[in-house]
Order: sequence, then structure tokens, then C-alpha cells
Amino acid sequence: MLNRRRLLGGAAVAGLGTAAGAGAVAALAGHGSPVPTAVATPLDTGTATVAFHGPRQAGVSDDPPAHAAFVAFTLHPGTDRRALTRMLRLLSDDAARLTQGAPALGDTDATLAVLPARLTVTFGFGPGLYPAAGLEAPVADLPPFKIDRLDRRWSGGDLLLQICADDPLTVAHTQRMLIKDARPFAAVRWVQQGFRRSPGVQAPEHTQRNVLGQLDGTANPRGAAEIDPAVWNPDGSSTLVVRRIRAEIEKWDILSVADKENATGRRLVSGAPLSGTAERDEPNFTALDESGLPAMPDYSHVTRAHVTDPELKILRRPYNYDGMPNAAGQPDAGLIFAAYQRDIVRQFLPIQQRLAERDLLNEWITPIGSAVFAIPPGCAEGGWIGEQVLG
Amino acid sequence: MLNRRRLLGGAAVAGLGTAAGAGAVAALAGHGSPVPTAVATPLDTGTATVAFHGPRQAGVSDDPPAHAAFVAFTLHPGTDRRALTRMLRLLSDDAARLTQGAPALGDTDATLAVLPARLTVTFGFGPGLYPAAGLEAPVADLPPFKIDRLDRRWSGGDLLLQICADDPLTVAHTQRMLIKDARPFAAVRWVQQGFRRSPGVQAPEHTQRNVLGQLDGTANPRGAAEIDPAVWNPDGSSTLVVRRIRAEIEKWDILSVADKENATGRRLVSGAPLSGTAERDEPNFTALDESGLPAMPDYSHVTRAHVTDPELKILRRPYNYDGMPNAAGQPDAGLIFAAYQRDIVRQFLPIQQRLAERDLLNEWITPIGSAVFAIPPGCAEGGWIGEQVLG
Ligand code: HEM
Ligand code: HEM
Repeated sequence: MLNRRRLLGGAAVAGLGTAAGAGAVAALAGHGSPVPTAVATPLDTGTATVAFHGPRQAGVSDDPPAHAAFVAFTLHPGTDRRALTRMLRLLSDDAARLTQGAPALGDTDATLAVLPARLTVTFGFGPGLYPAAGLEAPVADLPPFKIDRLDRRWSGGDLLLQICADDPLTVAHTQRMLIKDARPFAAVRWVQQGFRRSPGVQAPEHTQRNVLGQLDGTANPRGAAEIDPAVWNPDGSSTLVVRRIRAEIEKWDILSVADKENATGRRLVSGAPLSGTAERDEPNFTALDESGLPAMPDYSHVTRAHVTDPELKILRRPYNYDGMPNAAGQPDAGLIFAAYQRDIVRQFLPIQQRLAERDLLNEWITPIGSAVFAIPPGCAEGGWIGEQVLG
Repeated sequence: MLNRRRLLGGAAVAGLGTAAGAGAVAALAGHGSPVPTAVATPLDTGTATVAFHGPRQAGVSDDPPAHAAFVAFTLHPGTDRRALTRMLRLLSDDAARLTQGAPALGDTDATLAVLPARLTVTFGFGPGLYPAAGLEAPVADLPPFKIDRLDRRWSGGDLLLQICADDPLTVAHTQRMLIKDARPFAAVRWVQQGFRRSPGVQAPEHTQRNVLGQLDGTANPRGAAEIDPAVWNPDGSSTLVVRRIRAEIEKWDILSVADKENATGRRLVSGAPLSGTAERDEPNFTALDESGLPAMPDYSHVTRAHVTDPELKILRRPYNYDGMPNAAGQPDAGLIFAAYQRDIVRQFLPIQQRLAERDLLNEWITPIGSAVFAIPPGCAEGGWIGEQVLG
């Protein structure tokens, strides 16, 4: 079914029957408890909402919508704890309304607010936000890796707003309203816009392909039982790493299918591990192929990235980007790689270190941006994101 | 219904039941004859195809899909009539396959070819293509207008490929394959990526809003009876004007609703002309309002742009763009304004001249790019786009 959504981890999705939109609120359970699969009606893609309020922020364990803008800000000098509080109250109020299909207070284009299309706004606090509030930061920039070719243009940030929706115009309008309201307190540092497949193009239960043509997301934790221990701290907080990773698409494209599969550790068409036959088969790292070599190459991406301990897994929620090619026609494409986990140092870092050290895929991918954010808990109605941190 | 598509002007849309895709061909009538409204099945958004072959090119009078890339090329010196023929045969073959969900010959990422999502590839020939082939050009650059602030970066082009699909990954893959195959003959001059609402977000019979929040497309000719005399020459050819028009969104946004409506000549919420009450009401330019002034302001966009002769109308097929805002948070947004008509000089030019001379909207919109293209007729199976011109 087109509109059956797999509800990872329990964000509530409600298909509203009308396009009225004004203030309509998803009346389902808040985040945290698994919600039964909802079968929505046709043409609800625009009116579907994800609850904003709850103990955990939305936009993390719910199924990623088709479009995203990651907007990072640098706080103005002088944006202190009181100013931060004002800003976060304002932005939380905007997000609470916009995600439910209602205009923001002072919305300058209210007509664009009525089709939320599963809009979520997820707030991330960068390492610089805490000292501005007189607090110690719970997250720190990643150490440099030898594969990095980081551009300041895509790196860092004191505050992140991850805006996701199934409609690009909704993302554009939300981005405009939130930037407008953040502006007295912070400058835009970077914006990264990305996409996944359009709604209805693939059933949600199918793993999507990325710009490299790979099925991307297979080994992700799914469902609350797997996601909760990997992603959510008991207080409802989490962390996010955003890396802009350019793909050397032209070189990648001319590889043989066998070479691509070898670098990935999985088959291109089926997504099966090279040690198995079906996408969901667990990779077997001791199996040998006909020639007596390990079926899963030692330095394939999956071999190097693989994690077995459920508490050490990460939840990847990447978006593709595809910018303007250069005059020679070379694409500017890759992933806005976004990973959620409880703890960056315990979970993300060891994986990234293994990959940086050795990963066949490195020949065709280059990190050009990097940023880390603490994801504060969600808030109840009338509350604001960050109240537990700054309140 | 989510997947009921209003089939403007008769391009054939077929909802294929499977995702197999390889070579599946829309078996409906070619372009030119109106096709009855098709009710497609859920999850066909990815597998739906628009016929490539026919007397007229696709991507013109069919309903615009959600995503587009306009890719303009500059021919390499030495790309003569023979080379052009080779290039166009190759690109036509690519387009014929990709639009039907089959990989291009030499497709370097065949896995990305299976979900065409109503993919169309429309070929446009710029003024520079003809002399390269020893021919006289049937189209010429527009004259300069005093409102223009044109940037070479978004202007001109010897060849245009207008790539449209309901899925952004399909657009990205198609763009990559076509650029790869065009590269021996031409350099990429510019690429403009744009969007409309996602599939399923709005019923096709509803006019969409643009980034300015306006209902955009109301007065467009619809159906073969209106489109044919405005857009198609008897030989199946047409012309296209592409203007990149930046919106001064920040200034626009702070206007009152009344000021926005005054500048447009239509109501913001309903899209009704200021002389009427419903979106489809014909504007009445002699009606007076309560205060005895013309209900349709003399210099509103609609008043100035209005055309009554059905043969002088143009078919607007615009896409929104929304780039990266600057550090101050000011949006980089506007329209990739694309208009099809039989004859640029007879139809487009007088409208543009009236608007350039006087249009209240000019205060908030600025043309920053401009290009014109002849749209050659379509081709039959085994043929190629341009064969009537160069063959
Ligand atoms: C452009 C960059 C990247 C591409 C194209 C890519 C692609 C893939 C693909 C195709 C898979 C196999 C299917 C799946 O399970 O999703 C995979 C798995 C995985 N990747 Fe990446 N990846 C990239 C970057 C990263 C980074 C930066 C990390 C973390 C530092 C990472 C961590 C993982 C993990 C943990 C898995 C699952 C391994 C397993 O347990 O089987 N990837 N990636
Ligand atoms: C950013 C630039 C523009 C914006 C935001 C814009 C917006 C609009 C809107 C809201 C309408 C009324 C609804 C409709 O019929 O679609 C309209 C109508 C129209 N526009 Fe534009 N427009 C733009 C540029 C242009 C240009 C460059 C041309 C041609 C040179 C043009 C020609 C027309 C025409 C012919 C109509 C229909 C008028 C009628 O017969 O009622 N527009 N436009």
C-alpha cells in the first residue's frame, strides 16, 4: 500500500482526512511506545502529520520522509542563556505549529503551512551552544581522520534544525520561517538539502537506493526493540553526527558490478551480503567463497562497519545530494550522512575509525563536511526543546 | 484520488503493476490525442511511464511531475552536423529507454533506471545549434528588458535537456547518464534543479502554490482543445523560454495579504481574480470595486499578462527553486519559469514586454537567467529527436 508507513520506534503518524490543516493535531500516542502500523487514505501524503510533542524528538526513529534540509547556525556573540531560551521557545512554538499543518505565529506565508506532509523539525545542539549558556558541552567535534577533506562551509554549527517532510515546498517554507525567527540570535552557517525517493515511489518496507545505486539502510536497527537501546538515552536524549560525503561518482560508475559489490560487501541488485543470498541474511564473516577466500572481503565497507552489540549500533538516516555538475559534466553528488546514537564516542567513533583506517569504499567517497550535535529530549505541549538543558 | 492524473493534451501515462521496469513500454496512444483520465493503482508512482515516442515530444503538455533538472549545454567547437546527429541519436536512444524504466545502453548504474516515475526528457535546440549544423536558427535570444539582471551562469545554451520525473533520484540518474553521453560533443553550461509539490501531496486537478505562496497555473490552457492551438505547430514542433526569476522573498513575505493580492490581481487563498469569487472565474477588467476603482488593478501581474486569443496564450510549466540562503539567512528562491508556445515572437514576447514595462510584481521578482529553445517534433520508434531538422 502506498501510504502504509512502517513506524520505526513509535513516532505517531496520523493521516488527516482534510487539507484544512489549521492546528490539526495527531492524536496518537507520543514518542516512545510502538504504534501499530497505520493504513492511511489516498491523498493524505500532504496532510499526514508526525506528533511534535513527546518525551523524544521526532525526526529520528520515524521513517525518513523524502526531503530534508539540515540548517546549521552560528550563535551571534552575546546570545547567552537567556537569549538562547527565548530563541528555543520561539522555534519550538514554530515547529509545534508547522508540523501540525498550522502557520507559525507571524507566518509570512500562511498558505504554505497547510500541507505538512509528515513534517518534522529536530533540534540539535552543537558543542558551541553550551559554553554560550555557561554549561559544559556533552558533545565534542570528531577527531580528524586521514580520509577527511573537510570544508568549513559544510562543518560545525552551534544549533542544527533538521527539517524533513515528504514535500519540498513544505521544507522550503519551514526553513524560511525558522531561519527568520532564529535570525536575531544566530547566523546561518550552512544549509544542506537532500532527498530520498518520493512518497509512493517505493513501499516503505523496501530499503532505498542511494546515488551510488546501493541499497542503503539494510542493517539499520528497526522497530523500538532495536532502535531504543542504540539511539535513546533514558531521558529521551540522543546524539547526531552529520557528515557530508562526496561520492567520486564518475570513478564509481565505471567500476564493474563485481568491484562495486566487493567494495560494499553486498550485492548491488539484491543487497544480500556476499556470504548470503537475501538482503536480510546476516553477513557471515567466516564463510569462504568457491576459491577459498573470505566471502565477505576483509576490507569491504560492511565488514569494517559491522557491529553486533545492539547497544553499539548506530541509526543511519542519510539523504542524497546532487548539486550542479561542473562544466566538464562531473556530478557533485553524495550523501548527507546522518547517524543517530546514544553516545558518539562509544558508538559512532569506533566505526568511523575502522572505516577511516581501511574501507575499500574510501577510494570513491570523501568526507567534505562534519558536525556533531546533542539531541535534547522532546517536550510536552507548552514546553520547549532544550528546557531540560537550559531551563 | 492520489494517482488520478489529469492528462493535459494527451501524453500517455501508464501505471505499470510491477517494478520490473526493464523495457516496459506504455502501450497507450502517442502524443496528440486526448487520453481519458487514468485511475492508477497505489504504489505506481515509481513505475508510471510517459510514452517517449510520438509526433510531439513529451514533457510539454503532460502534467508536470514533481522534480525537474533543466540541463543546458554549449556545443564543443567542431560539433558539426554529423557529430550533432550522432549525439542526438545517442541521447534519443538513452531517453527512449530511461523513460520506459530500462537502463540506457552503457548505463553505469542500471539499478537506478527501474523506477521512471513518469520520467520525460524533452530536447530543446538553442540558437547556436543551428549554425553549427549549417542551418538558419528558427529561434533567437530575447531582447534585453529593463527588469533583467541576467547572469551568464543561467543564460543561453545550444542544447537543452529538460528532465522531469516524480522522483528526484530518477532525475539525478537520468541527468548523469545523459551528461555522460553528451560530453564528447558538448560542455555543461548550466543546470537548474526545481520542484513542485510531491506526488500525492495535492490532487492533480488543484493548482499548485509556488514559493511565493501564490496559486500558479490557474489561467493556463488545459486539455488538447486549448493547448494544441497555443503550443503545437502542425509539424509537432514548439518553442520554449526558460527564465530564472529570483523572488525577493523577504520583501514579498512582509507585505500584507492585500498588497500581495493587489500585485498579483488574484486572491492569495482562493486564487480568484479580484473581480470574482472563484479560482476559475474569468477576470473582469472593467468591473469596479466598492470604492469605484477597477477591481483588477491596472498594473497587477494578471491584468498585464492576460491574453484572450487562444492562439496567443502560452503554456507555463514553472518549477520552484530554493537554494542555500546567505549567512544573513536571506533565501535564494524563485521560479525556473518555463513557457511553451508555438511562436516566441508572436506569443511570449508581447506578454514579457508588457510585464517588463509595468507589472506591480516586478518589485519582488528579478529575471537572472534567460534562454530560448526550439522544441523539435517527437520521433517514432527507431527515430531520433532532431531528425526532421538535421536528418
Ligand atoms: C558515502 C558514504 C557511505 C556510503 C555510500 C555507505 C554505504 C553503505 C552501504 C551500501 C551499506 C550496506 C547496506 C546497509 O546496511 O545499509 C552500509 C552499511 C553500513 N554503513 Fe555505510 N556508507 C557510507 C558511509 C558510512 C559512514 C560514514 C559510516 C559510519 C561512520 C557508515 C556506517 C555503516 C554501518 C554501521 C553499516 C552497517 C554495517 C553492518 O552492520 O552490516 N557508513 N553503508
Ligand atoms: C517569478 C515570476 C512570476 C510569478 C511569481 C508569476 C505568478 C503568476 C501568478 C500567481 C499568476 C496568476 C495565476 C495563474 O494564472 O497562474 C500568473 C499568471 C500569469 N503569468 Fe505569471 N508569474 C511570473 C512570471 C511570469 C512571466 C515571466 C510571464 C511571461 C512573460 C508570465 C505570464 C503569465 C501569464 C500569461 C499569466 C496568465 C494571465 C491571465 O491570462 O490571467 N508570468 N503569474
